[in-house]
Amino acid sequence: MSEISLGDAARVLKLTVAYDGTDFHGFAAQRDTRTVAGELGVALGKVLRTTPDALELTCAGRTDAGVHAWGQVVSVPLAGAGADPDVDTDRIARSVSSLLGPELVVRDASWADAGFDARRSATWRAYRYTIVNRPVPDPFLARHAWWVPEPLELRVLRMGADPFLGEHDFAAFCRKGPEGSTSVRRVLDTTWHDLGDGVLRFDIRATAFCWQMVRSIVGTLVDVGVGKLRPSDVMRILRSRDRQAAGRVAPPQGLTLWEVGYE
Amino acid sequence: MSEISLGDAARVLKLTVAYDGTDFHGFAAQRDTRTVAGELGVALGKVLRTTPDALELTCAGRTDAGVHAWGQVVSVPLAGAGADPDVDTDRIARSVSSLLGPELVVRDASWADAGFDARRSATWRAYRYTIVNRPVPDPFLARHAWWVPEPLELRVLRMGADPFLGEHDFAAFCRKGPEGSTSVRRVLDTTWHDLGDGVLRFDIRATAFCWQMVRSIVGTLVDVGVGKLRPSDVMRILRSRDRQAAGRVAPPQGLTLWEVGYE
Repeated sequence: MSEISLGDAARVLKLTVAYDGTDFHGFAAQRDTRTVAGELGVALGKVLRTTPDALELTCAGRTDAGVHAWGQVVSVPLAGAGADPDVDTDRIARSVSSLLGPELVVRDASWADAGFDARRSATWRAYRYTIVNRPVPDPFLARHAWWVPEPLELRVLRMGADPFLGEHDFAAFCRKGPEGSTSVRRVLDTTWHDLGDGVLRFDIRATAFCWQMVRSIVGTLVDVGVGKLRPSDVMRILRSRDRQAAGRVAPPQGLTLWEVGYE
Repeated sequence: MSEISLGDAARVLKLTVAYDGTDFHGFAAQRDTRTVAGELGVALGKVLRTTPDALELTCAGRTDAGVHAWGQVVSVPLAGAGADPDVDTDRIARSVSSLLGPELVVRDASWADAGFDARRSATWRAYRYTIVNRPVPDPFLARHAWWVPEPLELRVLRMGADPFLGEHDFAAFCRKGPEGSTSVRRVLDTTWHDLGDGVLRFDIRATAFCWQMVRSIVGTLVDVGVGKLRPSDVMRILRSRDRQAAGRVAPPQGLTLWEVGYE
């Protein structure tokens, strides 16, 4: 077994990971619970011939239970034999994926510099939220979309999304973080797509997001879309910085961490 | 409770049903097992205020465990109060769907003539089979596609599919049916679609199919696509009428009963 010490990490393994979050209790490792980091750590430990406890997995965006990812980025500092630059990262990706179920795969693996950290080095995150807007739910999209039977007006959804652009205090759209943490974030772009057959997708990219921010934004926009709120209410709620002022929180299954950007 | 007698069925309820077959043991009702007919019968019984045993559900295509449907058609002969022509079929569809999980929904309900039978009245069935042809599996398509990592050539898949067109004895591509049953079927059209990003879809329409016919055809075509068989072998296998001569059987999760045609 290789001796892996994090103190003198020589290299950092950068993984791009996709998962169907339905049957995971989120990303972060928890004892006696199936999580993405838990499953990934066990498989990676086997492939790198070390114990999962010796590996420190950091992700770009901590997804909640039921939330999916297509381009989640995970960094793992390695030292000793695990950091051997001759180790073929494609083989690591294939070997780890083959140990995991089809609901969790390593799409890509590469070496990054010793200073690379999936969370701190990220410059933006892009999320997608999918809605099925039809009178009848769709069994094929049940795990990956929110079913909203009331007709939504795309024009109104788009008007509602405008105020989020730019830098704001998103306190009204975030679950409270640790004491003293800021809820100021910069939203870079938002787009509503009509994918046809009543399938709508909201894309949002920001430097970073606070906890449940995308789901709170989508929940409020759907309240606007069905007429419970007016588009002009969005700016008022945003300015209030009052968590109670926002609409409902959209359910987790519609949300996917799509891509993470680095310099 | 209404008295429903099948002997003097006055009307037939025609349902168009969609389901994600992953967690069902196929369509046909079985005791102590979760099946589509079982769940549907219980919900329909509640809505029509009768016992599920009083309802006889006939489907257009008996899907195996793990096989999905978008346009499965189910007929239910009704008599007595259940056959009341004033009953709003849209309400039946909505009420039944609301009693079921999102993995099984009634997309449409309407009244058909007393002689209508979802299986016997059908003039054609269309199935779709989805393949993810990439080096790495796709977590989002794991429940709805077959992952084939070896590169497939669409041109070769299309050449392989040509011999199936028209009327043939499909004995080599069917699991044996009841004694004396025929395996002669007429295939009306087949198409391979490249949906991009390595997703391939095979569409096949026939007057009727025998047991595991689509999955046997797709399994053999994939053997052709990866070079284990030549396109010219397909005609030879078809003519052999020998079950052992065909390639593997494609797994159920890629298959969807898409649509059923009636006069």
